[in-house]
Amino acid sequence: MDFILRADKMKNITRQTYLADGSRKENDAEHSFHLALMASILLEYNEEKVDKARVMEMVLVHDIVEIEAGDTYAYDPEGNKTKEQREKKAAEDLFGLLPDDQCRYYKGLWEEFEAKETAESHFANTLDHIQPILLTDAADGKSWKEHGVKKSWIGTRNRDTGEGSPELGKLAVELLEKNIRNGNIKNE
Amino acid sequence: MDFILRADKMKNITRQTYLADGSRKENDAEHSFHLALMASILLEYNEEKVDKARVMEMVLVHDIVEIEAGDTYAYDPEGNKTKEQREKKAAEDLFGLLPDDQCRYYKGLWEEFEAKETAESHFANTLDHIQPILLTDAADGKSWKEHGVKKSWIGTRNRDTGEGSPELGKLAVELLEKNIRNGNIKNE
Repeated sequence: MDFILRADKMKNITRQTYLADGSRKENDAEHSFHLALMASILLEYNEEKVDKARVMEMVLVHDIVEIEAGDTYAYDPEGNKTKEQREKKAAEDLFGLLPDDQCRYYKGLWEEFEAKETAESHFANTLDHIQPILLTDAADGKSWKEHGVKKSWIGTRNRDTGEGSPELGKLAVELLEKNIRNGNIKNE
Repeated sequence: MDFILRADKMKNITRQTYLADGSRKENDAEHSFHLALMASILLEYNEEKVDKARVMEMVLVHDIVEIEAGDTYAYDPEGNKTKEQREKKAAEDLFGLLPDDQCRYYKGLWEEFEAKETAESHFANTLDHIQPILLTDAADGKSWKEHGVKKSWIGTRNRDTGEGSPELGKLAVELLEKNIRNGNIKNE
């Protein structure tokens, strides 16, 4: 119950992505809700065999460490240098609130998501990359424009977006290219 | 993709329950995130055999009709008279955005949740009842006090909270009784 009440704090961690209507930035709980729903709906686009419940659980806990470590914007080079260390410490604290067997299970899911080596983690990472692209495209590139995001930053970040889901990877590329053409993302 | 972007509107549907820290009311996306996480973590307290992924999917879509029908507070007798009709219409519109097979599947999950006849729907309804009790207890009864909630209103609403999960049902009763004793819920 401690862990469940602590997870309520996800609702206070603001991300850099705006809602599709551009009205405000979304938070980690809303982002995780959206990924879990997408995991269910888009499963048929995934070519690797995955355990659906496991993917949903993975996306529900993948950002929980940000309760303590804060959200690090995908295109923030400085923040990303210290991200790993901050998040590891947070994972120990947070998953440590659970009974031993559950602590191992959910911490394992978080590590698996980060390591990107299993089919479930490929699909979860694809969803995690594509959801903000979908929302930001719908919001006419609002967060990309605010951060002056450049085409050259995107290659590294999105190289493995389509792993396991070539169709979703293709959709991500199409949306990004559209936003480079219309100037929402700088062509540099 | 239309359905996925439409689901973003869940983030704008405010519920009557405050976050555990009492800072603001939560929305449907945050509520659904919390239920899906609880479905995974509290599964061992459920005595009926359930399909975990199905319960998680059920709680993720159980409130989606509120995008069109609005949120109806559990203790609002007037709103609850027209709730069923408003929500049925919304379900047709929203799940109709999906391909036929998915429309049938997710609309079926929503109907199953409402009918409360299967093991999955018992567990999902237990979680849906207990989550606002947990949060409102943590927020020192804020929404109960605002709505002047009385002990006599609770019986009907929470009669089937523990169906399939006696331990969780017991926890709900204990938390409610504590809040009747401390006056957050009127002893009438």
